[in-house]
Amino acid sequence: MDADFNELAVRLGEHNDLQSAAALLRWDQTTYMPEGGSVARGRQLATLDRLAHERLTDPALARLLDRITPAAERAGKDSFAARLVRVVRHDVERATKVPATFVAAFANHRTELYERWTRARPANDFAAVASLLAKTVEMSRAYAEFFAPFDHVADPLIDLADPGMRAASIRALFAELRATLVPLVDAITRATPADDRCLRQVFAEPEQLAFGIAVATKFGFDLTRGRQDKTVHPFMTKFSLGDVRITTRVRPNLLSEALFSTLHEAGHAIYEQNIDAAFEGTPLADATSLGVHESQSRLWENLVGRSLPFWRGHYPQLQAAFPAQLGGVPLDVFYRAINRVERSPIRTAADEVTYGLHVIMRFDFECELLEGKLAVADLPDAWRERARTDLGVDPPTDANGCLQDVHWYDGYVGGAFQSYVLGNLMSAQFFDAAVRSHPEIPQQIEAGQFATLRSWLASNVHVHGRARSADEIVTSATGRPLSTAPFLDYLRTKYGALYGLTA
Amino acid sequence: MDADFNELAVRLGEHNDLQSAAALLRWDQTTYMPEGGSVARGRQLATLDRLAHERLTDPALARLLDRITPAAERAGKDSFAARLVRVVRHDVERATKVPATFVAAFANHRTELYERWTRARPANDFAAVASLLAKTVEMSRAYAEFFAPFDHVADPLIDLADPGMRAASIRALFAELRATLVPLVDAITRATPADDRCLRQVFAEPEQLAFGIAVATKFGFDLTRGRQDKTVHPFMTKFSLGDVRITTRVRPNLLSEALFSTLHEAGHAIYEQNIDAAFEGTPLADATSLGVHESQSRLWENLVGRSLPFWRGHYPQLQAAFPAQLGGVPLDVFYRAINRVERSPIRTAADEVTYGLHVIMRFDFECELLEGKLAVADLPDAWRERARTDLGVDPPTDANGCLQDVHWYDGYVGGAFQSYVLGNLMSAQFFDAAVRSHPEIPQQIEAGQFATLRSWLASNVHVHGRARSADEIVTSATGRPLSTAPFLDYLRTKYGALYGLTA
Repeated sequence: MDADFNELAVRLGEHNDLQSAAALLRWDQTTYMPEGGSVARGRQLATLDRLAHERLTDPALARLLDRITPAAERAGKDSFAARLVRVVRHDVERATKVPATFVAAFANHRTELYERWTRARPANDFAAVASLLAKTVEMSRAYAEFFAPFDHVADPLIDLADPGMRAASIRALFAELRATLVPLVDAITRATPADDRCLRQVFAEPEQLAFGIAVATKFGFDLTRGRQDKTVHPFMTKFSLGDVRITTRVRPNLLSEALFSTLHEAGHAIYEQNIDAAFEGTPLADATSLGVHESQSRLWENLVGRSLPFWRGHYPQLQAAFPAQLGGVPLDVFYRAINRVERSPIRTAADEVTYGLHVIMRFDFECELLEGKLAVADLPDAWRERARTDLGVDPPTDANGCLQDVHWYDGYVGGAFQSYVLGNLMSAQFFDAAVRSHPEIPQQIEAGQFATLRSWLASNVHVHGRARSADEIVTSATGRPLSTAPFLDYLRTKYGALYGLTA
Repeated sequence: MDADFNELAVRLGEHNDLQSAAALLRWDQTTYMPEGGSVARGRQLATLDRLAHERLTDPALARLLDRITPAAERAGKDSFAARLVRVVRHDVERATKVPATFVAAFANHRTELYERWTRARPANDFAAVASLLAKTVEMSRAYAEFFAPFDHVADPLIDLADPGMRAASIRALFAELRATLVPLVDAITRATPADDRCLRQVFAEPEQLAFGIAVATKFGFDLTRGRQDKTVHPFMTKFSLGDVRITTRVRPNLLSEALFSTLHEAGHAIYEQNIDAAFEGTPLADATSLGVHESQSRLWENLVGRSLPFWRGHYPQLQAAFPAQLGGVPLDVFYRAINRVERSPIRTAADEVTYGLHVIMRFDFECELLEGKLAVADLPDAWRERARTDLGVDPPTDANGCLQDVHWYDGYVGGAFQSYVLGNLMSAQFFDAAVRSHPEIPQQIEAGQFATLRSWLASNVHVHGRARSADEIVTSATGRPLSTAPFLDYLRTKYGALYGLTA
């Protein structure tokens, strides 16, 4: 038995080493690699990915799991052994159920469509990608079929990002959310708009970076086990629990860009840095779902980083960093500016309130496309219609409509978007539970003390890695299953005050 | 046959991808990795190195080479196929002749000794490492025995760095060199010493880096296929022919440090960037020997970068970068400062003239230790004695004596040092041949035009990668075998003029 567990650790360690090496190569590709390195880098990544995949699909690993399972279950279903074996089996099955020929065919298709999309979007030419996107829908259905039976064809695709989540339960949550968000956005946008000109001045890059990383460090991002670099599209990545890196981009004429992307990515990184060190080298040493991951980034970015208590305590420091730009701007003007709500066609530029509506429409379209209720050819019109109804905007072009996000043009249709909103819901539910346990948290945030909040998150969410599912974590940490109530309460309270709405 | 060659390309490509990934992990480890990443990074590197080694020692690769060899040789001994097969066979044999148990035992021993040395050197405690170093000597002999028969026990170790070179021929060259260098150093150090205080002022880091990389770029280092970062010990590394990186370190109070280390590493990088692109992904896409590699770094650093023509043309630009520090320093004072010769106990701080004497004594000690003529216990005394005779210095401590270099404490004794001097000899011989072909090169250097020299090096040295041996390259590029004459002529002429020596 011990020998079997040792063998499992060795096999998982090798798989993890290959994945971590590939992650570093990808990080380098988007931070420091000179352009001349790209062709060879593609080959190197293909080799590392293939070798990692071979390790996961090695029949000897499946046999080893079969041998180990009885003893692991005897150790108790919540034991490290049982949880590890369950997670590894999940990964092995996911890697083996999809034939290598399908994986290769989809990789080729995806490369072709992505390349086509990079030209179709600026050209506003949906017709140029329509037939390839239809093939993506077809291949996404085919992918799901490898995991039949399922309740909904989107379920196996959703499982890739949010294991255990189902289309049906997400739809129910999203319907509730939409029913409140649409009238809330209406009410807010009838009020006087916030003025965000104070964010649109010229801000020197070094000071922007210094302020952002100083706050991220105070939140708990540990720079002895991480670092920050610049890139075009900010992300977080990890090469081990002791080496978790974030990237950001700086726009000299928009202060909010680097600042909130830094706090967002730092939220992701704090999650990874606090996973149980005993899980290192195994698949347990990862986030349990993209939804939970997003809950941590959104919590630090929005519930802390865009909150009034935080800026009551920290706005003077920001003013000191940019005296010429912000010295004469009162706190309440700045606070309104960073929480400006507006109807806009672009998801990535959306505020906290409208954001969910962007995602919900995409999720609904994914379901309808997979179900065959919506044809790809009809997507542009359906998109415009829904944008009018839900967002109150009329996207002038498909480039600002159904061509705007990379996701469907670089992966499956299905499961690509829900994590963003699940994360928002969870962020409010976690924050609410943390404040119930520790009512002093808001004052601490104002005083620049984040240890209570961070420790609550670390012990209730982070430490578990993949040893507990998102459902288990939400329920045990907050005392109830995932719900829209805390998030909607948060929005109503915060934006009610900001925009002078009556309840 | 085509199928066999395709299989060879695939196998070599995978090996190369793993090696390149490991190289990136090592680069990151010394440039950007946070300290928390080091334990996992060690594991990741061990995995990549092991997987690369497994590919090289796969019996199927040896059988494939056996199948391919007849056809490759029929294609002509100078054909790409024949040269590739020969180089791969050399690598395969070197990887297979040494048992895995020995490799593992030596790796453990080396780690222990290195760790011990990092404490013994500052403590000036040779006794703390003596018995482990004696074991290194023993294991170095054992390593050599795997390649018996040989002319000299050091030959298989020399072959690791300088394939085809032998202890006997190196000894003959080094004896000649020493016979001239010892009296030359005597003569120079009797003359008035150069004053290098102009280099020892305060120089801002950004300007130091900008000037260095601007010159490196003019030399031919292509930043679309490379970059420069900061590190503690400067080096060059490569992840593909399109991604060749250098590192440097900056000392704010010593201008020569970053500048000449940048030119040195850029020389290495220019070599790699000009290897035949058709060799990419195979073992031919590497430098043919460390000696030839060092010849390229030394050529750009010393024969160009410390030359009077170069500074006649470029000193005004350096003065413009540092007007307060150098505005009042005449060219001849600066030129003498960067070419100051002095007796010193430390190899890495040595000038062009004394440098060889440091290396020759190490090479001789390596041979004597391997032959059993010198006991490790007697090394400190032997070192002091030889430092007095050859260098005219009395190292005050072993820390400044036989403990100073990492090489023997982190690898084999034998073959560790000769490349440095072989590189110096070759640098002068290549430069001399290039100027014979293109007598306009010195004027071009003064005018900031380096294309003629670079092209000559690229087509005579770089392009061949490992497809030609160092011997072949030297002979075909310069019309004669490696000799001490061009280097000694260069030193006599340059330093004769600098120090007013009579011939």
